[in-house]
Amino acid sequence: MARVYNFSAGPAVLPEQVLREAAAEMLDYRGSGMSVMEMSHRSKTYQGILDEAEADLRGLIGIPDNYRVLFLQGGASQQFAMIPMNLMKNRVADYIVTGQWAKKAWQEAAKYGTANKIASSEDQTYSYIPDCSDLPVSENADYVYICENNTIYGTKFKTLPNTKGKPLVADVSSCFLSEPVDITKYALMYGGVQKNIGPAGVVIVIIREDLITEDVLPGTPTMLQYKIHADAGSLYNTPPAYGIYICGKVFKWLKDLGGLSAIQKMNEEKAAVLYDFLDESSLFKGTVRRQDRSLMNVPFITGSDELDAKFVMEAKEHGLENLKGHRSVGGMRASIYNAMPMEGVRSLVEFMKKFEMENK
Amino acid sequence: MARVYNFSAGPAVLPEQVLREAAAEMLDYRGSGMSVMEMSHRSKTYQGILDEAEADLRGLIGIPDNYRVLFLQGGASQQFAMIPMNLMKNRVADYIVTGQWAKKAWQEAAKYGTANKIASSEDQTYSYIPDCSDLPVSENADYVYICENNTIYGTKFKTLPNTKGKPLVADVSSCFLSEPVDITKYALMYGGVQKNIGPAGVVIVIIREDLITEDVLPGTPTMLQYKIHADAGSLYNTPPAYGIYICGKVFKWLKDLGGLSAIQKMNEEKAAVLYDFLDESSLFKGTVRRQDRSLMNVPFITGSDELDAKFVMEAKEHGLENLKGHRSVGGMRASIYNAMPMEGVRSLVEFMKKFEMENK
Repeated sequence: MARVYNFSAGPAVLPEQVLREAAAEMLDYRGSGMSVMEMSHRSKTYQGILDEAEADLRGLIGIPDNYRVLFLQGGASQQFAMIPMNLMKNRVADYIVTGQWAKKAWQEAAKYGTANKIASSEDQTYSYIPDCSDLPVSENADYVYICENNTIYGTKFKTLPNTKGKPLVADVSSCFLSEPVDITKYALMYGGVQKNIGPAGVVIVIIREDLITEDVLPGTPTMLQYKIHADAGSLYNTPPAYGIYICGKVFKWLKDLGGLSAIQKMNEEKAAVLYDFLDESSLFKGTVRRQDRSLMNVPFITGSDELDAKFVMEAKEHGLENLKGHRSVGGMRASIYNAMPMEGVRSLVEFMKKFEMENK
Repeated sequence: MARVYNFSAGPAVLPEQVLREAAAEMLDYRGSGMSVMEMSHRSKTYQGILDEAEADLRGLIGIPDNYRVLFLQGGASQQFAMIPMNLMKNRVADYIVTGQWAKKAWQEAAKYGTANKIASSEDQTYSYIPDCSDLPVSENADYVYICENNTIYGTKFKTLPNTKGKPLVADVSSCFLSEPVDITKYALMYGGVQKNIGPAGVVIVIIREDLITEDVLPGTPTMLQYKIHADAGSLYNTPPAYGIYICGKVFKWLKDLGGLSAIQKMNEEKAAVLYDFLDESSLFKGTVRRQDRSLMNVPFITGSDELDAKFVMEAKEHGLENLKGHRSVGGMRASIYNAMPMEGVRSLVEFMKKFEMENK
């Protein structure tokens, strides 16, 4: 067995310890005589797994009692519809469009009401976060929406927008649990888990209780109502049980590391190694405005499509995988999520240095 | 490690060989250097897994080219909305209500149009399948809907309903791949995989191509449109990648066993052992009309709630798990899906005999 350094933007690297535990428990979860995959979701054993996952997540973030935690299916893409269907009471919402995913969310919301694009960074290929300190937030907006970390473009909101009292809804898929957050600043925070937390097929929604109502848009499917899932403790129907179990292991791993402050420090150190090199390199350069740089996704280019392709190919031969950038940015992208070890980032930078020397 | 015999109705027992392979590949899938959980869904390796799973499923069932296979999320419960939202062009559909799941599907469809209950077996706690040879199918029905195997009640359609030319839509969650089927008799066949195929979080939809159109009901979320997923080859967004990988392994396991005819024979033999005993027992009796008995789910009772509870408890002590019946039927239920070995059924019957002797 030889593990590579996997810089995939998602699904992405998971902690090796989590995978080892999952493998060891595959045929017999702790004396139950069965795999977690084979377990009734109504069993005490599985309820224990679910409860512990939720409790650990609440502990990590510091989620107060007036927020509910939901483990759902359909990914962020399904939330793009579920959010307006549940929250658009006035049929008005404001969207800050800082990338492809925020744009898709905005376009989907427009099916259900007036979705205003109140800010955007599309003019410069989403390479920065617009100033959101005094935006024209709509008088009757049901919420203001952001994608907090933009996976494709490598930007992150360092300051949350001033929503002028309107509820803030945030897609945190690619920065979930990467640093401490004040959840009380959000009305709804959600993310697909396949970047920083677990296997694809689970989306976690953390929602303030007062936003969970029966008053949804006409025609909203039962499965797309937050209240249905909240009332059933995420067990309205069979949940993505194995995925939640893996998420629970990642929560434990994070707790053992020291929680979100500890992982933030590690993430900052890892990102600094890469960004510092990019800032001094004569070949590679980052594509994002410095103050908006993500700790998780680091796009960079050489300026030559040919060299970019050569770099991605040679990196792969050196066990540095999935460094090709998204087609809308080009170049390279290194996703350095929680589970990417410092050695992975150092190996990447060492290889970049070598490549730079060889391709002067 | 001691494996139990797990008679859970779902999530349910999986082939031990599949679990062993999954455990062995957990940290390094065939030299890729990563777990399937960590793999980009846009990678060649993952595309290979997905393509092979689809090809094997097509081979097993014998799916012709004019049907599409979709691997989706949200379970059967989400299909309850997705089906009418996509297929109710005339806003009329006919439902045959043979259990709780068919009833839920019918109730959900009523949100989107006229959902007619054209037959039901609710009068006798769904313990039989109604005669469906000459039902009052609506002139303008967009489809006729059945739940082909009723997990809770242990009934199965042995003959498909006469839909009088209307498209047949069938939930086959609990009989998926348990015997050969003529897919051309169905317009849409779907099932959650967590009973007979894989881990919860994947639903497979097999749909005739002409039913996949852009003409869906207003307000249908993008993620609930068959066309979106069909056009993207089940990769519109990140799929439940690990679950699909496990499904693929189960398809291979079935192929190696000899396909659906072979598994049907094994299922018939297993079910016969249990039903034959029930027919001769003086303590236990089956709850389903003989000609409608499911090969997969076998509910039975002693007639005494006290004895039922005692049986379930003592069976558990003997490594025979999850035999408690659904609360709406009471008593016991043994789910004997494809992956339940004959020895499991024999052990159960041996234990029932012993229990009967001891509790005369």
